Amino acid sequence: MQSINSEKSEQISVERVVNDIHNNNLPLLREFLDTSSPREIADLLVSILPTQRTIIWELLSEPKKSEVIPWLRADIRPGLIEEMDDAQLFIAAETMDVDDLADVLGDFPDQVTQSIIEALETDNRKRLETVLSYPEGSAGRLMRTEVLSVRKDVTFSVVLRWLRRHEKLPSLTDALMVTDEEGYYLGKLELANIVTGSPETKVIDAMVGTAEAVRFDAEEHEVASLFEKRELISVAVTDADGKLCGRITVDDVVNVIRHEADQAFLKSGGVAQEEDLFSPIMPSARRRGVWLGINLITVFMAVWVIGLFEAALNQIVALAVLMPVTASMGGIAGNQTLTLIIRGQAMDQVSRLNALWLVRKELAVGALNGLVWAFLVAIVSLLWFKDTYLSLIIAIALFINLLVASLSGVLIPLTLKRMKIDPALSGAVILTTVTDVVGFLSFLGLASIFLL
Amino acid sequence: MQSINSEKSEQISVERVVNDIHNNNLPLLREFLDTSSPREIADLLVSILPTQRTIIWELLSEPKKSEVIPWLRADIRPGLIEEMDDAQLFIAAETMDVDDLADVLGDFPDQVTQSIIEALETDNRKRLETVLSYPEGSAGRLMRTEVLSVRKDVTFSVVLRWLRRHEKLPSLTDALMVTDEEGYYLGKLELANIVTGSPETKVIDAMVGTAEAVRFDAEEHEVASLFEKRELISVAVTDADGKLCGRITVDDVVNVIRHEADQAFLKSGGVAQEEDLFSPIMPSARRRGVWLGINLITVFMAVWVIGLFEAALNQIVALAVLMPVTASMGGIAGNQTLTLIIRGQAMDQVSRLNALWLVRKELAVGALNGLVWAFLVAIVSLLWFKDTYLSLIIAIALFINLLVASLSGVLIPLTLKRMKIDPALSGAVILTTVTDVVGFLSFLGLASIFLL
Repeated sequence: MQSINSEKSEQISVERVVNDIHNNNLPLLREFLDTSSPREIADLLVSILPTQRTIIWELLSEPKKSEVIPWLRADIRPGLIEEMDDAQLFIAAETMDVDDLADVLGDFPDQVTQSIIEALETDNRKRLETVLSYPEGSAGRLMRTEVLSVRKDVTFSVVLRWLRRHEKLPSLTDALMVTDEEGYYLGKLELANIVTGSPETKVIDAMVGTAEAVRFDAEEHEVASLFEKRELISVAVTDADGKLCGRITVDDVVNVIRHEADQAFLKSGGVAQEEDLFSPIMPSARRRGVWLGINLITVFMAVWVIGLFEAALNQIVALAVLMPVTASMGGIAGNQTLTLIIRGQAMDQVSRLNALWLVRKELAVGALNGLVWAFLVAIVSLLWFKDTYLSLIIAIALFINLLVASLSGVLIPLTLKRMKIDPALSGAVILTTVTDVVGFLSFLGLASIFLL
Repeated sequence: MQSINSEKSEQISVERVVNDIHNNNLPLLREFLDTSSPREIADLLVSILPTQRTIIWELLSEPKKSEVIPWLRADIRPGLIEEMDDAQLFIAAETMDVDDLADVLGDFPDQVTQSIIEALETDNRKRLETVLSYPEGSAGRLMRTEVLSVRKDVTFSVVLRWLRRHEKLPSLTDALMVTDEEGYYLGKLELANIVTGSPETKVIDAMVGTAEAVRFDAEEHEVASLFEKRELISVAVTDADGKLCGRITVDDVVNVIRHEADQAFLKSGGVAQEEDLFSPIMPSARRRGVWLGINLITVFMAVWVIGLFEAALNQIVALAVLMPVTASMGGIAGNQTLTLIIRGQAMDQVSRLNALWLVRKELAVGALNGLVWAFLVAIVSLLWFKDTYLSLIIAIALFINLLVASLSGVLIPLTLKRMKIDPALSGAVILTTVTDVVGFLSFLGLASIFLL
């Protein structure tokens, strides 16, 4: 990439790696991988085929593997861990810090987990047990326990002397946390303040005493939105009493944002679970088959509605021909509304305060588009089938279905959210059922009444 | 929010603001808004109705408005700027820094823009013109020009003395950039290194000389993926010669990631352009109508295919009833594949190296699900219509359509990408056309051949 000048270490190119495997350049590849960052190797591993993945994994040195494990995407981690024997896993676990270990331990075989926990020093075992006790998706799980804290009464020169005893600060340290004697969180002292302040300054006079802290049980989503609102690099995490227990850094928040967006996108496409692009055929087929099965039920509901009008379809073949128009247009219009509302919900923009307003607006948008497209559809079907009543009926049916679609596009996600069901996944399938059923019902129903 | 303890300033609650407006508590509300951060006010403004938006905007003091303007989401900014008179805009522009001004100037009326540019000092005018010359969506547009740089030969004690002359460092300063006498970028010196190093250390010995820099013309997307891969807080931006011209910080990168994900989600729901949830009815209807119109064309293609089989539909009414099944199931299966491939493309996981492998895998998944669901559909239609041949034909048609859907799910996004068309927007509509046409064609076609 010409415009990103990165000498640090060559960015891993999938093409290069695949070529090396193909040409059996394995020693060279091994050397290259040993100088790459764990994160980049993890990114590489999700971008190549399963067979290549195994080859790369076997090329990595044992210490490199333990560095990479915490970075692996959750869906490919178990497979790679399976290829390591118990002794290797044990060694890998020993080199990980407690936070990483907590993230990956669930994928280790039970007997290994047991011996790893037993082998930990009492301190680390306690820390591990604490972290594991936090619910998944909470600030406690997201945080690192590695955090630098200072007392409020010392001066910058003391702080600097203490800092200089460190070889290196924990990564992404933009600030020190300030606590009292008992470990209660008081505020945040930015490195930027330390370097601009005079050595005699006291911590308490320079710290931001009002800097926000999150409790260990705050939800990931809340934490991410706090970071975005306040442009934070790190935030302190406290226990229920307000004692400092860790910190969350912006890189983990970026992962949360990425993951949330990714899930919303997958769900909107009918892919319910995290699925590796290169995962084996059988599990892929099974996971997606579930969704196809649910859809089949809804299709049969629509088809059953059509079946109610066999008599009409038998007499007027044009009905069968034009039938998909109303259902399909309703589906598209409803899905547009649904998408906007779901996004609005994700951004906390939708509430009972404006629900009524949104219903009215979407109905108006549906009515406007209903008028325009109903008119056009009527003209096309008039030219095709030369039947004024039929054209009128399809126009009315289309108009009705667009109104119903707009209304459903607002009400379905609101209702699902109230029932604590994720609208991103099930919203579209419910909506399509409604627009299909109403689309067929209004068109064929009106036709049965007025044309037979 | 109980678990986020934020004393700094109460988080703005939409509910509270709406209630204050409703109860005409405006003086209190004004006071509250004056202590809120610009970002939070901007977030509030997108979450309330247009009428409320106007009230809030009028409550803000002039200096507050100029702080808020750069934070406003692009789709609501022009509307709010319109409500300010030229003199107010001129004053607002004077208090903005050049980077912010470059972002918003396009929304100002022409005559104001002209006088703002003329009123700028020569230095600032030049900087503004430079920033405006960078293409939208490039690193040059994303960067801030406010950047602290030091020479490589000085010692930490000199650096510290210089830093202490600053009241405050630019926000999100995690590092100083190191340049030579002529301004060429050499590397990055982290504040963490300054505070841990001894005062005699020379910059050159402590800086990360291999820290990556991005060129002004790098694409936002590339920059974001560099930040994610390397866990950066900031990165230097250089001109074509390698001279330091600014820096990009992680908060802007978070915005880029958010925006990209948001766009992908909206597009997948058939909402092509950024649309404010509360935007007026007419523009909303027009924007969404375009998409409905495109869909109508594709529906009529499918309907035309059905029309080819009027004879068959006339003789066997069950065909009309069952017809939607094959098309709908194909649409769902194809959309699942499409979604996974589009996500893979966004993560740079899909290339010509694995395209063939992906086609084979998706075909296999399609075939497996085809077998399972074709069997089930055959049984249901057998029970319903007691016609063995009809059941056999719908099963075969469904199987064919799921294979075509899987194949299209891979090939359509690959082809679109090669043609430099965004697959997230147009992929689904093309796919649905294919699965509709093939779904109807295979079912009605086979029926015409074997049942008539």
